[in-house]
Parts: sequence; structure tokens; C-alpha cells
Amino acid sequence: MPQPNDPQEHLRQVQELLARQRLVENLVHRQTMPRHELVEGLLHKQHRVELQQRLDALHPADIAYILEALPIEDRLRVWEMVRADQDGDILLEVSDAVRGTLIEDMEPEELLAAAEHLDADELADLAPDLPPEILREVIDGLDHQSRRQVHAAMSYPEDQVGACMDFDMVTLRHEVSLEVVLRYLRRRKALPDHTDKLFVIDRHERLLGMLTLEALLTRDPERTVGEAMDPGALPRFHPEEKVTDAAHAFERYDLISAPVVDGQGRLIGRLTVADMVDVIRDRSDQEILGQAGLQEEEDIFAPVWGSVRNRWIWLAVNMATAILASRVIAYFEDAIGQLVALAALMPIVAGIGGNSGNQTITLIVRALATGQVGRGGTRRLLRKEVGVALINGLFWGGFLGLLAWWLYGKPELGLVMTAAMLLNLLLAAAAGVLIPMLRHRFGQDPALGSSVLITALTDSGGFFIFLGLASVFLLG
Amino acid sequence: MPQPNDPQEHLRQVQELLARQRLVENLVHRQTMPRHELVEGLLHKQHRVELQQRLDALHPADIAYILEALPIEDRLRVWEMVRADQDGDILLEVSDAVRGTLIEDMEPEELLAAAEHLDADELADLAPDLPPEILREVIDGLDHQSRRQVHAAMSYPEDQVGACMDFDMVTLRHEVSLEVVLRYLRRRKALPDHTDKLFVIDRHERLLGMLTLEALLTRDPERTVGEAMDPGALPRFHPEEKVTDAAHAFERYDLISAPVVDGQGRLIGRLTVADMVDVIRDRSDQEILGQAGLQEEEDIFAPVWGSVRNRWIWLAVNMATAILASRVIAYFEDAIGQLVALAALMPIVAGIGGNSGNQTITLIVRALATGQVGRGGTRRLLRKEVGVALINGLFWGGFLGLLAWWLYGKPELGLVMTAAMLLNLLLAAAAGVLIPMLRHRFGQDPALGSSVLITALTDSGGFFIFLGLASVFLLG
Repeated sequence: MPQPNDPQEHLRQVQELLARQRLVENLVHRQTMPRHELVEGLLHKQHRVELQQRLDALHPADIAYILEALPIEDRLRVWEMVRADQDGDILLEVSDAVRGTLIEDMEPEELLAAAEHLDADELADLAPDLPPEILREVIDGLDHQSRRQVHAAMSYPEDQVGACMDFDMVTLRHEVSLEVVLRYLRRRKALPDHTDKLFVIDRHERLLGMLTLEALLTRDPERTVGEAMDPGALPRFHPEEKVTDAAHAFERYDLISAPVVDGQGRLIGRLTVADMVDVIRDRSDQEILGQAGLQEEEDIFAPVWGSVRNRWIWLAVNMATAILASRVIAYFEDAIGQLVALAALMPIVAGIGGNSGNQTITLIVRALATGQVGRGGTRRLLRKEVGVALINGLFWGGFLGLLAWWLYGKPELGLVMTAAMLLNLLLAAAAGVLIPMLRHRFGQDPALGSSVLITALTDSGGFFIFLGLASVFLLG
Repeated sequence: MPQPNDPQEHLRQVQELLARQRLVENLVHRQTMPRHELVEGLLHKQHRVELQQRLDALHPADIAYILEALPIEDRLRVWEMVRADQDGDILLEVSDAVRGTLIEDMEPEELLAAAEHLDADELADLAPDLPPEILREVIDGLDHQSRRQVHAAMSYPEDQVGACMDFDMVTLRHEVSLEVVLRYLRRRKALPDHTDKLFVIDRHERLLGMLTLEALLTRDPERTVGEAMDPGALPRFHPEEKVTDAAHAFERYDLISAPVVDGQGRLIGRLTVADMVDVIRDRSDQEILGQAGLQEEEDIFAPVWGSVRNRWIWLAVNMATAILASRVIAYFEDAIGQLVALAALMPIVAGIGGNSGNQTITLIVRALATGQVGRGGTRRLLRKEVGVALINGLFWGGFLGLLAWWLYGKPELGLVMTAAMLLNLLLAAAAGVLIPMLRHRFGQDPALGSSVLITALTDSGGFFIFLGLASVFLLG
């Protein structure tokens, strides 16, 4: 049974067609096939038509997926064969990195045509990536209302609800009957995507409540909208709210759409679950990439220089902290000269401290992000994490102490190892709680670079503690 | 303007009420307040009533949020005040870790009552956490159809579509008119949550297509369902499919609900966007926690022992790799004894290799997860990552070489440093591509412990390369 929803299968088919096409081209090019132009043209055309048909049948999201998975030359080849009226939707679906490569390849008039197919909110999403003169021309071509909507959507920063709202809604007056609404919808012939409720407004456009499709379908049609509507206890959002808070509300209350109202309670737009799913995905992607020291998702087929740029900041930070740790070790070079075993053991202390600290800081950062830990919880969390560190320090530190003793035949060295492990794990626990809590209190994002910070501390700290203890108790 | 959808505000209010309650209790307990039982009782009762009212007004998801954010004693205090008919919904909403603490606190009859309020699919979700005798009693109390549904949902592993489906759907025959459907829905009085389409089946329960609410509302009511329906080009899922694939399809096609069919094309259940949002959130949480070496989300107020258990596996793995790296260093103790500067410089080589390798492996793992890199892409990716490593190795390695020269006055040491950096970055790039690609080819999850693996390699490898080069070229 063929699966219509298997993008990897679509990708495989497109790749196969491209490969066949390339094969013909190569044969002709290398002249290993006699240049029967007719045959060549025929074969080429046949593959082209087949590819074209396949692409025309695909959902824009699937084409976007295929474009992302193809190396640049194939990507542009496919891109040129995509139906023009899908261009806009596809540009919205692809990742930022890939969007750039596609837009660069388009003629101004193609871009213009693509942008003209879009709704106001979609145009606003695409705006930052469009050449300014194209954007101006498209906006100039809009009617008054759409132009106002595009400007409204573009006036909010990306992390606010206003930047994510769309303007595609059905609004009703409260005094009409459901019967009238049903007739009106039939005349309207279509509903906006993700319509699970209609919005009830007064003549000043103030939101009075919402009529769910469920109520519309199950209540007596003689009733008025006012009687059947939900008077707005349901979540509504303000355009300046954080979009991540809105996404959490969609998750918590299982929403499909929700109204956006201004300070006067006037309905100005709508959020839908599809946009919120994108927000959730984007944020978690950013978190995962950020943990690994990457600034953003890379086009995996982008040239090497783009990747170097994407990665260099965290490499540079890492370099600085590594040099710092190196200077701590250099300070104890005498001790290492006297007892070289220290050099072999010290990375264990630092490494396990780093791992343990990362565990703690990850949990705290996540708890802060969901708001589950307020300022008051610091002491309690500290107590717990220190408790965990004590147990781990005694257990693993004890084990490593015995190992060091056995390997080097020096019981004192084992004791120093155990003590250093214990102390570095305590340092990691305390810093893992305090760094994010303090950054949160001072209004910073506690997630940003948290892993680099804690590792820097447990590295330098671990070397200092271990080599310091060794200097004092083993050498003297 | 008060925000109904601000869970942190709800939390703050509950915490305040709990604090006031505790204050009264403490005063009485310490006898600093004369034990006027009347006053005490009154105050206590007043707070209780206020708290109760506040809780009754909240959405189960908000109560779940508050319970997660409260330390155990407060959590149980609030839990006991929650309306019994909300117990089941709240248990479904809280995290696994917190659910355990709540269920432990409940009497068998309370649990029984809570479980009886749930739908078949919800009961299946909760089943693993319920005491077996309670579960059996609840299932025995179900009607035949629900019992079959619970067993069906429980028979699929958690990562398959079957475990996520619900059974709450409206089904239609194709030959009836839309008018009849409208009348039927009015008699039905309610629709299942997240109903955006009704399912059209034949008399063998085979799925023929779907009637969207949009079509139902906008088409001529004289038409039949068969004429107005979408004949099922839309995605449908099989119960054995991976739930992450289904979630991706929901994202790509902006779905709200979708049918689940068995091998014979019979409709057996339904997926909704609310469940898919949970899947997306869960997977990204697991990825983030996994990167930091945590097995699962922790109840931040859980006792220390639970946390030790959650974290120990990755600590143990980390310990093993750290000991391995330590043995590599120990092998070169002679070299370090002769030139102690090596001990100070070697962690830089290892650390930056690890960071760079983590960047590469994170990108590859993500590209594999979205299916954007097939098996064929290995060579291309390898070439690119090696290119990035070459640039970084020459640039940063060169910088560190100069630094080492300047610090220790030995140009040869600088050269060894540069060469070691370059080689370790190349190793990191190659391993960062090959490890996940090979694991993927052999059917393993390339994400699992990827960071630990690559770090182990770049640590041991970095020490070996740097100390090895130094032994050969500096000492000999």
C-alpha cells in the first residue's frame, strides 16, 4: 500500500529521476554516446516531464523537504521546475538557510509573482528575506487593508505574538441566528484554514466571544449567536505577548485557534496551532543546536565558509576557556614535574565534574524555562543538588581513589583523588544551580551558553582543586 | 486586564495561600498565638475555602503545572483539595515523575474513581503507572467496546501510532445527505475534541474518505456525503507507524486530526494535533536531556536518590571514557616528565576537538533524523566537514601554536601544537560524520549518547596525537 505521506519516498524518487537525467547528460557530454540529438532530446524531455508531473502532485511542504535534502545544483534544477503558484508557499516552508539559496536564483519578476500569491501574514514572514525593492513593489500592489495588515505583522519582533498572527478569520455579530450564520457560510463557500471557531465582535470590533463550529453544528439553529457563543473565558492573546508563552498555552489547553486582541479588546488577528507547532519546533531546535555551540541550523549543502561562520563564535569561547584551564595547569607545573601521575589523573576530575555540572544546569535551565522554579526555590534546589553531588562524589570519587592507589601504589594519591572529585562535583552542583538562577534574576537568558560556562568552571576548577590538593598534601 | 492564561500567576496565588495557611499553623504550633481554637479554625477554614475555589476554577493543565512546581508536602496538600472528577485529567497532564508521587498518595477507591472518568485511550496512557489490581478492576468495569479499545491501545509500544490514537470519532455513510448529517450532529449535541473532519466508512468499516466540517458547512445540504467528501488522498496512518513520523506529517500538512487504519483499510482510531504536539515536545525534551546525560525529566522536588539513579548511567560511561583517556596520558608519562608544558597544553587540544566534533555530530544527527541525508550523502558531507576542520585547524591551530611558542619559548612546541590541533579537528570531523552515518546504516539510533562517544574519541585521540607528536619530534 503506497504511503502518500512519506516524504523520504518522494525524495528518493526525485533523486532517481535526477540521476537518470544526469546520466544522459554525462553520456552526451563525454561523447561516449553518439550525439544523436533526437535521442538525447527525447530522453531528456521524458525525464523532465516525469519529474515535472511528480512535483506538481506534491504538497508544498514535501517539495520544500526535497529541496532541503538536495545539493545546490540539483536543488536549483528542481526549483526551476516547480509550479510558479507554489513558489511562495515553498519559500515559506524551507529553512532560512535554504530560502536564501532559492531566492538568489529567482528573477525579480518570479519573486514578485510568488510574493503576490501570499496572504498578508505570510508576506510579512517572508519580508526579511526579500530584496527591499521587490518587497516595496509587492506592498504597493496590495489593497489598503492588506497593506495595513502586512505593516502590522512586520511591526512586531519575531518573538512576539503579533509577528505570528494571521488575519484570516470569520467574524459575526451576536444578534443574528445560527441559521443565518449557516447560510452565510454556505454563500462564503470556504473557511480559513484551522477554523474551529468564529469570532463574535461588536460594532467597534471588540471581541465579545467565540462561536465554536461544534456549537454551530450542534445547537438549535433558531438560537442567536449571542446565546450559543462562549463568552470569552477562553484564552485570548495580546500582540506584545511572548510567542513561546502563547505556544505553551496552545499546548496546555489543546487549542486550535485563538484570537489576538489589542489593548482596547478589539480583535486584530488570530493564532493557529500550525504556527504554534512551528514555534515549538524552532525553539527546541535552537536549544539543541545552541547546546552544541551552533548559532543556527545549517544548510548541510552550504559552502564550507558558511559553516565556519556559523560555528566560530562558540569555538572561540571554548578556546578562551581552554587557555584559561591550561594556565591553571601551568601554575602547577612544578608539582606535575615531581609527580607525573597528576597529569594523567587531572582530566578525569575535570571531565566528570563537567558532565555532572551539565546535568544539573540542564535541569535547572529547563525548570526555569517552564516557570516551575521561582526565585524562592534556589535554596531548596541547592540543597538537593549538593546532596546528589555528595553521594556521587563519595561513591565515584571513592572508586577513582582506589583505582589511583592501585595504579600508582600511593594511598595518599588516592585520597587526594577522592577529595578532589568530591569537591569538584560540589562546585559543579553549586554552580549548576546558581549560574542559571542568577542569570535569570538579572533578566538574562539562562540557557545561552550554559554548557560552555559550567564546563569552563569545572575544568579550571577541577584542575585547580586536584593539583592544589596534591601540591599541599603530596609534595609540600 | 487580567490574563486567564497565565499559569505562573495561578502558581503565585496558590503559593501565597499555602504560605498564609502555613503561617497560621506555625503560630498555633509554636503557641506564640494563644490557642483560640475558634480563631484558628476560622482562619484555617477561610484559607482552605479560598484555595478550593481557586483550584475549582482552574483548567486541569494549570493544576498539573502548579502541582509540578510545588515541593512534595505542598503538592500533596493541593492534590487532596482538587475536585475528584478532575483527578484523572490532571494525572494525564503531569510529568511521569510527578505522577508517581500523586498516585502513591491516593487511596485505591480514589484511583478507581479517577480512572473511571477517563476515555479508553487516556486509560491506556495511564495504565503503566496504575497499580495492577486497580487497572484490572477498572478494565473489568468497562463495556465490551471500550475494553477492546483499551487493550488495542495498550498493545502498541509507546513509539508507535497505535499507542497515541484515540477512539473518539464521528463516522458516516457516504450515501446520506449533508442535511441528514447536520440533523444527526444536532441530536448528538456534542463533537469529540479536535473534530475538524468526520470519517466516511463502508459497512465493513473501511475508510472511504473524510468529510471536513468546512465541506459540511459550505456545501449544498442536498448533496450526499459521498459527493462532498474528500476521497482520502489526505494522510492516513497505520498503527505500527512511528509516532514521530506521524508528528512530522502533522507539522508538514498542518493537520488537526487524521485517521488510523489497519492493514485492511478499516478505520480503527484517530490521531489529533494535541497528541502530536505532546510527541514533538517529548522528543525534543528527551533529546535535550539526553545530550546532557540525563535519562528523563526529573521531578525537581524528588528525593536525592531518584536523581542519583536518573544520572548515574551517563556518569558511569563518562567515567569509563575518562579513565581510558587517562591511560593514554599515562602511556606518555616519560614525555611529560621531560617537558611539563605538555601537561598544560594537552587539554586544549582535546577540549577544542571535542567541541568541534560535537558541532559536527549534532548537525549530522539532526539531518539524519529528518531524513535529509541518505546513505549516499556520506562522502559529500565528509568532504564538507573535513573542509571546515581544515580551515579551523589551520586558523585556530596556528593561533595556539604561536601562543605556545610565545609562552614556552619553543618554536618546535608551537609546531607540534598546530599539527595536533589540525589532526584532532580532522579526526573530530571524520568521526562526527562517520559515527552517526554508520550507526544509522546498522539500524541504531544515531542520537543516543552521540556526544559522549565523540568526546571520548577526541579526548583520547587528542591526547594521543599531541603527546605522540611531541614524543617523536621534541624529545626522542
